[in-house]
Amino acid sequence: MNTPNRKELVNITDKVTEAVAKSGIKEGFVLVSAMHITAGIFVNDEENGLKKDIMRLLEHLAPVGDYEHHKTGEDNGDAHLKRMLVNHQVTLPITKGKLDLGPWEQVFYAEFDGQRKKRVILKALGD
Amino acid sequence: MNTPNRKELVNITDKVTEAVAKSGIKEGFVLVSAMHITAGIFVNDEENGLKKDIMRLLEHLAPVGDYEHHKTGEDNGDAHLKRMLVNHQVTLPITKGKLDLGPWEQVFYAEFDGQRKKRVILKALGD
Amino acid sequence: MNTPNRKELVNITDKVTEAVAKSGIKEGFVLVSAMHITAGIFVNDEENGLKKDIMRLLEHLAPVGDYEHHKTGEDNGDAHLKRMLVNHQVTLPITKGKLDLGPWEQVFYAEFDGQRKKRVILKALGD
Repeated sequence: MNTPNRKELVNITDKVTEAVAKSGIKEGFVLVSAMHITAGIFVNDEENGLKKDIMRLLEHLAPVGDYEHHKTGEDNGDAHLKRMLVNHQVTLPITKGKLDLGPWEQVFYAEFDGQRKKRVILKALGD
Repeated sequence: MNTPNRKELVNITDKVTEAVAKSGIKEGFVLVSAMHITAGIFVNDEENGLKKDIMRLLEHLAPVGDYEHHKTGEDNGDAHLKRMLVNHQVTLPITKGKLDLGPWEQVFYAEFDGQRKKRVILKALGD
Repeated sequence: MNTPNRKELVNITDKVTEAVAKSGIKEGFVLVSAMHITAGIFVNDEENGLKKDIMRLLEHLAPVGDYEHHKTGEDNGDAHLKRMLVNHQVTLPITKGKLDLGPWEQVFYAEFDGQRKKRVILKALGD
């Protein structure tokens, strides 16, 4: 992942769907986990207003500001905390060879300190 | 799930226990995941006071209110956000054919926009 | 786990790494889950300032205080709520027989009501 904006929500459902198809697994799980500690993964609705609401909530709960972490020279303390609140991973069911999501479930990568290259691990397990 | 109240915490530990027994799996995991995006799943104590405290905390952090999401005609923005904070899934260990919970761990379905039919997926994997 | 302080963040990455090695699993997942309902598990950076920031955020969002739960004689309502916000488990990928973490990812046990014996379950699944 390399987002043009420092903070951004990216719908990665298609990428997860492809990875599940490639895995050849018929029944099992796929783990989707952000490997960098200032990004998260969550499942919610693909709706622009809601995405703004989510970012506003996170900014309200864990605002940009002065953090102890910044004594190291970093300036992304809020990004670490936002990732904590969002959580950094989901485990999704695979049924009959397909990603088994509810009617409105979409998978999002939540970037809180982007504009640089980051990785998400997708790992499937099953039969 | 179809809760009589719009917001409700439902203890689903027995249902998960049954599903594990039916699966025949001796060692593995069971994923419990809310398939609708205004509900969550969590593990905590079966204690009425605590359940009130949890709902109050969520109402405090992500209150009913005016959200961008409501421009679509919806009125459940807070429910989407509460689900984000609670998280929508847990993965539980299965050991010797049984759900392997700690002494006070109970599994809850957290409904934030109910009074209609919703699904929770239970999927077990293992040997 | 038995922490000297009532609230403490303990880096358990080495313990998880050992458990993965012992499991003999080459490709799969390891579930790390706090079995007591006043403790959590999360993945973030090993940096002292950040650890203070995380504890301050949690104290700010779910402070020590009067809770309904305390009518039972308990005094740890805030600890139950903090665990909810942190989440109580992570699922970590195992690749080529090793714990597959990102460059800065470290696994933490978050104790919110310690000074007594508690358990964390580590359970690996895969081939």
